[in-house]
Formats: sequence, structure tokens, C-alpha cells
Amino acid sequence: MPKMKAVVKTAPEAGAVEIEDRDVPTPRPNEVIIAVKAAGICGTDRHIFHWDPSVQFMKPPVVFGHEFCGHVAAVGAACSDLFSEGEYVSAEMHVVCNRCYQCRTGRSHLCRDTKILGLHEDGCFADYVRVPASNVLKLPESIPPKVGGFLDALGNAVHTALSADIAGKRVAVMGCGPIGAMTAAVVDFCGGAHLYLTDVSDQALARTQRWADSRPKGRATPVTVLDMRGDGREAACQAMLDSTGDGVDVVLEISGAEPAINDAFRVVRPGGSVRLLGLTSKRDIVIENYSRNLVFKGLDVQGIIGRKMYDTWFRTLNLLQGGLDVEGIVTAEHDLARFPDAMDQFDRGDAWKVVVYPQGKE
Amino acid sequence: MPKMKAVVKTAPEAGAVEIEDRDVPTPRPNEVIIAVKAAGICGTDRHIFHWDPSVQFMKPPVVFGHEFCGHVAAVGAACSDLFSEGEYVSAEMHVVCNRCYQCRTGRSHLCRDTKILGLHEDGCFADYVRVPASNVLKLPESIPPKVGGFLDALGNAVHTALSADIAGKRVAVMGCGPIGAMTAAVVDFCGGAHLYLTDVSDQALARTQRWADSRPKGRATPVTVLDMRGDGREAACQAMLDSTGDGVDVVLEISGAEPAINDAFRVVRPGGSVRLLGLTSKRDIVIENYSRNLVFKGLDVQGIIGRKMYDTWFRTLNLLQGGLDVEGIVTAEHDLARFPDAMDQFDRGDAWKVVVYPQGKE
Amino acid sequence: MPKMKAVVKTAPEAGAVEIEDRDVPTPRPNEVIIAVKAAGICGTDRHIFHWDPSVQFMKPPVVFGHEFCGHVAAVGAACSDLFSEGEYVSAEMHVVCNRCYQCRTGRSHLCRDTKILGLHEDGCFADYVRVPASNVLKLPESIPPKVGGFLDALGNAVHTALSADIAGKRVAVMGCGPIGAMTAAVVDFCGGAHLYLTDVSDQALARTQRWADSRPKGRATPVTVLDMRGDGREAACQAMLDSTGDGVDVVLEISGAEPAINDAFRVVRPGGSVRLLGLTSKRDIVIENYSRNLVFKGLDVQGIIGRKMYDTWFRTLNLLQGGLDVEGIVTAEHDLARFPDAMDQFDRGDAWKVVVYPQGKE
Amino acid sequence: MPKMKAVVKTAPEAGAVEIEDRDVPTPRPNEVIIAVKAAGICGTDRHIFHWDPSVQFMKPPVVFGHEFCGHVAAVGAACSDLFSEGEYVSAEMHVVCNRCYQCRTGRSHLCRDTKILGLHEDGCFADYVRVPASNVLKLPESIPPKVGGFLDALGNAVHTALSADIAGKRVAVMGCGPIGAMTAAVVDFCGGAHLYLTDVSDQALARTQRWADSRPKGRATPVTVLDMRGDGREAACQAMLDSTGDGVDVVLEISGAEPAINDAFRVVRPGGSVRLLGLTSKRDIVIENYSRNLVFKGLDVQGIIGRKMYDTWFRTLNLLQGGLDVEGIVTAEHDLARFPDAMDQFDRGDAWKVVVYPQGKE
Repeated sequence: MPKMKAVVKTAPEAGAVEIEDRDVPTPRPNEVIIAVKAAGICGTDRHIFHWDPSVQFMKPPVVFGHEFCGHVAAVGAACSDLFSEGEYVSAEMHVVCNRCYQCRTGRSHLCRDTKILGLHEDGCFADYVRVPASNVLKLPESIPPKVGGFLDALGNAVHTALSADIAGKRVAVMGCGPIGAMTAAVVDFCGGAHLYLTDVSDQALARTQRWADSRPKGRATPVTVLDMRGDGREAACQAMLDSTGDGVDVVLEISGAEPAINDAFRVVRPGGSVRLLGLTSKRDIVIENYSRNLVFKGLDVQGIIGRKMYDTWFRTLNLLQGGLDVEGIVTAEHDLARFPDAMDQFDRGDAWKVVVYPQGKE
Repeated sequence: MPKMKAVVKTAPEAGAVEIEDRDVPTPRPNEVIIAVKAAGICGTDRHIFHWDPSVQFMKPPVVFGHEFCGHVAAVGAACSDLFSEGEYVSAEMHVVCNRCYQCRTGRSHLCRDTKILGLHEDGCFADYVRVPASNVLKLPESIPPKVGGFLDALGNAVHTALSADIAGKRVAVMGCGPIGAMTAAVVDFCGGAHLYLTDVSDQALARTQRWADSRPKGRATPVTVLDMRGDGREAACQAMLDSTGDGVDVVLEISGAEPAINDAFRVVRPGGSVRLLGLTSKRDIVIENYSRNLVFKGLDVQGIIGRKMYDTWFRTLNLLQGGLDVEGIVTAEHDLARFPDAMDQFDRGDAWKVVVYPQGKE
Repeated sequence: MPKMKAVVKTAPEAGAVEIEDRDVPTPRPNEVIIAVKAAGICGTDRHIFHWDPSVQFMKPPVVFGHEFCGHVAAVGAACSDLFSEGEYVSAEMHVVCNRCYQCRTGRSHLCRDTKILGLHEDGCFADYVRVPASNVLKLPESIPPKVGGFLDALGNAVHTALSADIAGKRVAVMGCGPIGAMTAAVVDFCGGAHLYLTDVSDQALARTQRWADSRPKGRATPVTVLDMRGDGREAACQAMLDSTGDGVDVVLEISGAEPAINDAFRVVRPGGSVRLLGLTSKRDIVIENYSRNLVFKGLDVQGIIGRKMYDTWFRTLNLLQGGLDVEGIVTAEHDLARFPDAMDQFDRGDAWKVVVYPQGKE
Repeated sequence: MPKMKAVVKTAPEAGAVEIEDRDVPTPRPNEVIIAVKAAGICGTDRHIFHWDPSVQFMKPPVVFGHEFCGHVAAVGAACSDLFSEGEYVSAEMHVVCNRCYQCRTGRSHLCRDTKILGLHEDGCFADYVRVPASNVLKLPESIPPKVGGFLDALGNAVHTALSADIAGKRVAVMGCGPIGAMTAAVVDFCGGAHLYLTDVSDQALARTQRWADSRPKGRATPVTVLDMRGDGREAACQAMLDSTGDGVDVVLEISGAEPAINDAFRVVRPGGSVRLLGLTSKRDIVIENYSRNLVFKGLDVQGIIGRKMYDTWFRTLNLLQGGLDVEGIVTAEHDLARFPDAMDQFDRGDAWKVVVYPQGKE
């Protein structure tokens, strides 16, 4: 049995992550084996590393990692007409039941029986990963592995940004970690008229400002970066209200922070839209001024989870081919063998998006 | 100067409501004077009566009342081509600025400078009321004054119910006071497949069941009335989840009760819709299970305020002419001279919708 | 090999329909065999009978028929957890590829490689029919076989009617064959404020008026039946324009007749909606007053094909359980053995919806 | 009475355009007088010049011109709190009734009693123009008069492009006159993934290619310019179908040419969107393959007229402030005194957008 390297969560406890030798997986009839070229480290992977409550449904040992691109290495018997060896692909790692009401009505991203590869079953921090053929998407060569490695995260951003009407609108993005930054890039590319970008960390604020400044002149959406810490929060909210007149048209809440969620409802204009992607660490949160901020304003609020299957994927690939540039959001790249260092760097906030390469970057 | 009877909030304190003699108003150029035939008592009128915090922006003395129908008594010089004396009409009592962003983009119900007749200025608990011509709507004679007297409230119900996709869907209405009951009637009429109706008062639950039982056989939407008090709440939520499989498709939250708002997010299915009309008595509320109930479910949530100008009005009139029957929701009718009794009855919960008649019912 | 009776298109020519003995089908792993209880005769079946150009892609011999209900007789190995013998079911007979862009983005009803059972492959005018498990839907016992036999056609009507905003709106249905009648019934049930129903045949007009008159009093949407023949057409269009003021809010075009399509664009109000389900017998049609009727009116027009998989199905079942009554649209029922008579009756226009029963009606 | 220069259609016949001395208009209570800084020449002005049938409702003498920007010169008594002398403004020249169903439901752009300044009444090819205060919009100084002079036309483009879902989609724009070019610029700015731009004139095709090539590198949406003349038409349609797989996602029809309208329905993918802005010179047109192209494809089609009041205006101003660049679409600028030359140049197709300046360009 051929062997491969894989990053394994070995036990249900903090740490307990090892690089191990594993059997290379073989495909069942409707599955594809993919040689992983690049893989992104996600906030969820950090939760797995620390064994946070939100991921304790995992049953170690599990190979984790759920964002990647690579090349087809083997194709199951029942889908051999769909893929050929060597094709450049990525994959949706939410594996859905195809039987529930959501799946049968075109809303598989809300499937009530979703299994996530990299959490429920083995994922992509490895030389090879096994994925159902239905979940595999062919990539154009114009998308570099550096970007192909995190299409799952970029898909979250695209799903969030394009679920609201943003063209010619003033948009706030609450939280500028990697997904917030990608969300800002999508709004910038898709005709946002002004971007308000908030965070509470020096590193994220500095990176966000750098990203904003690095964009090509001429067509870049004006950006205001806002520090929400301490007194800055009140001033920032007031600035968003004052400069827009009535409040921003759309707020995309990526942070999952209770104050940011409340700021979202506060700074959005009457009749505006709020999209909620960020997950809170607390089970319950306090919503301030419920009647005034939600009811009287007639807000349009929507929760966002995953990527629409596969509308978000096709649209994301189109955006990248059309010129969307998110390479600058990757600030660290490592060989998979250096996974502990990569995770440590990400964990300390010393990098924005981190991409690892099982077979080396070149 | 001809005189009229009017119900006046005389001072900024609980009670302080008198029936007084007032000058009959005269129209400015773009205004219409309407002889009031019937007027509904609204929950807001109760707040005015008790001088609750939510209405303390009022500046007594003010004639209150903001739901009514009547006949045109005088027409301003600049709108004499629009209305004739004697025409049967009702009116939207939210008077908007026509200048703000909301007004200039077709969302006047979200105007940031709304004045409400019956709160900011004199309203309709009187023999005559003065209204801008733009706010007056002609009524067909087929709508009886008993119903024409509360089109404002019915408009809230229509706005709420028709803001979601309810045809062929399972719908819960949280809170079965008069507006909740009207909302249920609209869902029933507009193709709802099943109605779950909740309340926490014996009187409301009994009236709701009576209403459900009184509907003509054959086409009436099946109704389940649920008592949310004590242990009943958990059982009722579980019943909604179990009988629908995944949760109800749409929840229309009319009560403004914190537990009902949380139940709304809990019992709606993934991808379902929640509409929020009810105002909370508390400024802040706790939302339970935020990530699981709002984000992971990908909910579509919308605040509802007032009536769309004037889309909701035209649609409401169409529904009534098309066969919508809400007469049964009126359980008490009085001469305006008996306003104190009428308010008392409403206040004690001894009546559902109460309609008063300045000129007598016939 | 057990045998069954089946209605077979035997040759690519007019007529050439025989009741033959065929092998009872056996299920492949993901298929279900269903004992047919009731089956509807559709306009397409008439085209098959006459070998009209629109169906000449068929490769006889083929068992035709594509609307039915029945009971599960055998279940394939890979789906035995989904269905049990004896379960009461219906099925979507459009079998889609699950691979194309439409299928992968939740729009399978627009699949570019659809195979229709009853046209491309054997259908349901037989004792037994074989269907992919993914296409089978469980029916509640409250839906009688008389109605379960034509859920495909009813689904067309539901898809058409609920693709527009009809609650509290004035709606015209162009063409009152069986699907037009079902469409009217759905609009009636889902809160339409007024129905204008048109046709050009004495039989259809009489049936439509009878249907309208037979509805329970109290909540039935007012109906105007309009004869579009000769001078009646101009008068009818004018009547729709005059009685609505600006034109009807929504037109549902079911007939496929060139004049009706033009009337649709003419009688709809500015900003109104037109839905196009009817197929024209001619390849090309003339659209009159294009700029005035389509562009200046800012119309919202949508083509409708099939049923949304499976949103339309679930919604249709909900509507039937919620009280939608379409039994009166069936005006003839026969044993399958009398298929020639049934087809002849349908062909002559002597019946509205015709349902046949392979195993007898009881 | 102070005098001004104005371009007047003097008689109901071809030509008959004179630069005349006229009284400077004075404001009625709700009106504003604006000193015109820049004004765009529109295709409609060409129809007026030639006295084409489409404009023969005009009653000469009329000052024409309906796209402009300028500075407030006088303010009516009833709106003096809204505007001050010297403010930089533009205006919507569709003056609506505010009384019809469309106006009262937030769809004034579909008002059934619209008067257009520059057609029904005096317009902006003059030193001064009189406009209702409700129709005036303040401009930020960052928008140069060269662009402020054609916001009406740009609004058509914004209305058309943003009425469909274009972010991350493949979009065809049929017809690359000035409005087609503006439409392309909006799609480019708002995240279109690929643009197919068609025309049938050497001049327009060359300008379009030049525009495409002149855009800043890095983020510009890829553009394919297609010549639809002769055999090119079939090849171009095939190219759009082949390169997209299923057809383009969205077609924006600006040309009003019968072949282009048919190409729109042909090259759009199943489930795609077609927007119809272009007006045909013929009353009736032939739609080819109606059933296959409109019905079976389940198309979403919408007519587009004018600008949403005033949503399109606010959004257009936001887009310009956000970085949308349409200056390059202006290829000729003249003093108003040279109007005959300007019109001639435009008429011959020797210029794309032409802007005239009553007070000189500087």
C-alpha cells in the first residue's frame, strides 16, 4: 500500500496534532483521489488545533484541512467519464445527503446532514485526499495554486458579498481577518461605492490598510479603515453614520463579535441589509435596541453558511478569471512538512491567509 | 366656528384622556377633511392612555386615534380635482417628508422624518380629521365601515404576511392579538398550507380557536392553536418541529415578546423566513443560540414597519374585494361617546378588535 | 417473466397506438418500480397520438404517459432505505443529468440533457413503471388517486402561478384547458383578487364558468370568463383594461396562441408580470407594439417549463393538503383498457382532464 | 426681461432647429432655475432634429435637450430651504403625476402621465432651464461637467445593467452606441466576468475596441468585441455560445434592432436574463423560435425605461464617486452656439457621446 504524509488530529485534546504516514486513499465508484498541490489554513483548523468546543464533534484520528487545490490522481469507476488524471481541480468539502428537503430544493448548503471532509472525515492536509466526484470542480490554469488553495474561504466571501445588492452602495465589512479581507476584495471588484473596514487588532488593521493602498489606482473603491477598540468604536460608528447620511447600505458581519453584530444593526440605514457570516464564541448574545434597530428600520437580515452548491463556486471561478485579485491576502506560504510553524504563525496573528504545499510550492 | 367632539390626551401622564369640544378643522390647500365614520382602537392607543415610555414623544393636548374610515367633508383648493365631498375614504396616517433618501427611493414607510396623525398631530378619534390629500385612499362601498375603520392595522398584517413567500407553506404567527389574527386571516386567504397560531392568554387563545372554527369549510387552511405558557412552550415548539419535519417555512412575529422572538428563530426551518413586526417593551433582548439558529440556518429575517406607501393599501383593498373576511376579528363596537368604556374593555383583554363610531354605528 | 398491459406508441406515424403485453420492468440499483393506480392524459399525449412535429424525437416503440400516481412495487438495492413496498407515491418524469451547469446550480428543470419518461423512455400508461428513486415523491393518503394522477400537470400550474406575485392582485389566465383551469384554481386559492379567464372554445368557456360557479361561497375569488373569438377579443381586452384601470397585474399565458401572447403584453399594466407556459405551434411569432408594450411598460416576463425540482412538488403537495381543490377539473375517468376511447374523448374536447386507471378506479 | 440663447425645434418638420433668443425662465413656487453648464446630445434629440415619427407628439416651438448639469440660479418660494443659488446640480427630466398607481407605489418611472422636459416642455439646450425641485439632484464637485452633462443617459445604462445579476457573470451588451458603451462600463465596474460587445458599424466597433483597450490593466473585465454584420452574426452568436458553454448569463439589449433582440434570446443560457432597453423603429417584430428560446429556456426578461426615481440617480452618483469612469465615452465637446455642427457630427456617427456647453467649456 503506497504511503503519504498527512496532518492528523490524533486525540480529542488541545494540541495533539502530528504529521503521520497514512495509506494513500483509493476511490470508491463515485469518488476522485486528488494529489493536493496547495491548501489553506482556516480559522476552523485553529479551533481543531486547540480542541475548542465548536469542533468537539470530531472523532480523532482525523486528517484535517478542508480548503485546497490539486491534480486528479485517480478516478472511480462510475465517474471516469467526468475526470481525467492530471486535471487541475478544487473541491467543495461539505458532503451533503441529497435526500433532505433542503437538498431536494436546491439549497444543499443548508443540508441537515452535512459531513465535512477535514472534520467528520479525512481532509486535505495530506499528499492525497478522497472526494466525491459531485463535489469536484475543474480549475482554469489561470488561477494559481496559491489562490486555488483557499477557494472554500473565498467562496464564503463571495457568498456573503453577493447575497446583498452592493453595486453602487456603501458597504461595511465587520472584521478583517482573511475572510473579511476577501469579502472586501469582492465588494471592491463588484462595484461597491465605498468600503468601511473594521477590526480590533493592530495586525489586521495594518494589513487591511496595506491591502487598500496596494490596489491599482483608477478604479479602486474608496476605503476607510476603522479601529473599533475602546473609544474608537463610538467614533467609528458615528463616522459611518455621518459620512453616509442615513447609515451604510449594507453591512457584512464576518467577525462573530457581539459588539460588531450590534454595530451592524446600528450603522446600517433604514431598509438596508445585514449579512451574518461570523460565528459567535458565546451561545447567546444581547441585541441592543431591538425595536429601533431591527423593526423600525425594516432591516433585511440574512445568515450565511458555506457556499451555494455550486452557484457560488462557478461565480467565484468567473470572478477570478474576470480579474478579481486576492493573492495579496496570502501573507505566508510553507511546505506542509512545516505545518506546526505555519499553524503557530497563523495562531499568533502573524499572518493573514496561510497556504501550505504538500509537494512544495514549485 | 363649528364644533365637534374629540377624544383628547390632555396631559403627559397616565389616564388624562377627555372627550372635549374642538373646532372642526379646515383644510389647507393640499388637505382633505374627513367626517369619521368608524375608527379602530390600536395597541398604541392603549400606550397613549397609560402614557407608556414608547409614546412619550407626544405633546398633549392631542386628539389621538390613527385608524379610521369616513366620508370627505371638505377638500383643499389644490386637490379639489382629486376628491369630492361625500366620497367614502380611509387614510394612511404616517405623514412623510418626501425629501429623505427613503422617500425619494420608494420606501416612504421608512421615512426618517415621519409624523403620525394621532400621535404627533391630531388624529381620528373625533367627528372630523384633517389629512394630506396624498394620504387619502378611496374605498369601495363593499368594504363596510366596521372593516374600513381598521385598515391601518390590517395593512400591518398584509405587509407582514405578504413580505414572505407563504403560498403552499407552513406558517407560524406568534401572538394572536388583533393584528396577529388579521395576519392569520391573510395567510389563510393567500394560500398558506398550515397555520400555527400561538399566544399566552386564555382570551386570545379562545378567540383564535373560535375564529379558526368559524371559517367556511372546504378551503380553510388547517390551524393549530398553541398555548406557549409554562411547559406548553417547549411542547409547542417541539410540535411545530415534529409536524413539519424541518421546522415551519415562515414565522411572522407579531407579539414583541422576547421568548416568542427566540421561538421564531428556533422553529423556523433552515433557509426559512422570519418577519419581525412586534415591538419589545425592553430595549435590549437576548438572542439564544445565535450561531446555530441564525447563521447556520441561513435565515432570511426582515423587520416590518407600517404599510408600504401605497402598495400595501392597494393590495389590502384588493384582498378585501377579492373575498378576505376579517369582520369576525371585531368583537366590540361602541359609540365614540363611550370611548372610556371601549378603551377599558380593550385594556382588560375583553375584546379583540374594538371599533368606535363618532356618528353612531348606523 | 411476468407480463403487464401497456399503451405503446408503435410506430413513427399518426395513430399507431396499441395496448400490448410487455414485461414488467425490474429496478436497477437506484430505481423504483411503481404499480400505476391513476394516470392523467396530457396535451403532449395527444401530440404523440397524432405524431405531431413537436414529439418526433421519440423512438417508437415507447410506452407513453408521464403523469401518474401508484404504489411502490419493487425497490432497487441502493435505495431500499428510502422506499418500502406499498407506499403511495408519484414521480417527476423529467430525468436530469445532474452534471450540467443548470443541474449543479439548483435549476434542474432547465437541465440541458433532460430525458422524459413517457417520451424518451417508457412511461406510465401501463400496469407498472420504472422511475429513478430520486424522482419519486411520497404522497399523503389524503390526496385521492384521481388527483395524484395528474400532479405533473398541476405542478406546471403551481410553477406558473407562484412564479409571480399574485396575492391581492388582478390576474388573467390565457387559455382554459386543463392546465389553465388548474392555474386558475391555484390563483384562486392563493389570494388572487380577481381572475380573468379566457378561451376560444365553447366547451372550455362553459366548463370554466361551471367551475367558477361551483366554488364554495364566501372566499372564492371573483371570476370573469371572457370569450376571445372574433370581435369578442377586442371587447375582452378593453374590459380587462377598463375594469382594472391600468391593466391586470399578472398574466399567465397557458394557451400558446399567438393572439393570446400579444393580448398578454397588451392587457398587463405597466410594471406588471407575464408568465409564458404555453408552447406555440409555430416556430416564429409576431410581437405587436414591441416598444410600447414590452419596453415602455417595463414588463417582467418569464418563461416557465416543467416543475422546479422539487420545490414545486413539495409546494403542490402542501397546497393540496392545505385545501386546494382541483377534483372538479377531472371530467372523465376510464379504465386504461379503454384508452382509445379516453384519448378520443380528450381529442374531441369532450372532456377537460381525463384520468385513466390501469387497475380500475376502485 | 433678461434673455438667453436656446436651441428651439421651431416647426413640426425635419430640420427646423434654430438658436433663438428666449426669456430666461422664472421659477414657480416648487421649481428651480438652473444655469446649464453642460448638456449631452441624445439619440432622441436626433429623432427631434429629423422629426421622426417617435417624437411627433411634440408641439413646436420647444427648447429641446434633456440631459444636463449646471448651477442653481433661482429657487421657488416653496423650496428655498432645499436649494441655494450656486449649487451644482443635475435633474431628472421625466416629470411625473404623483397620482397614478405607478407613482403611488414607488414606480414613478412607469408613470402613465409622464411629461418630459425637452420634449413636452422646454428643456436644457439653453442658458437656463426650469425644473421641479423634486427632480433636482445635488452633484458632488468630483463629477466633472463633462460627465454631469449626461447623467440621464448614464442612468439608463445603470438602470439596465443593475437590473440583472451581473457580478461574476458573462454579459453581452447588444449595441455599442453611447448608452451601450456606458452600460459596458457599468458591467465592467460592477464585477462582470466577461463582456461581449456587439455592433454593426465600423465606427462603433472601433470606438468600443479602443475603449476596451484604454482601461487600466489589472482589474478590467475581459472584453470580446463582435461585428454582427453579414456572416459575422452567425459566427458571433456561435462564439458566445461556445465560449460560455451554455450561453451568456445576461444580455443587455440596447440597440433596438430586431436581429439583436432575437440574438439576445438565442445566446442567453437557460435560466438567464435579458434586459430590453432599445426601442425598435418598427411597431411589430418577429420573435424566432419562441417556444425554444423563451419558454423552454425559462428566461427572465425585463423591459427597462428611464431611471428609477430616484434610486438609479443615487446609485449612479455613488458609482461615479466610487470610481466608475465614463469620460472616455465623450468624444466631442462644443459650445452650444455650435449646436448645428455638434448635431451633424453626432448624426453622421463621427462621435460617440457629444456634450455641448452653453457658457463655454471652461
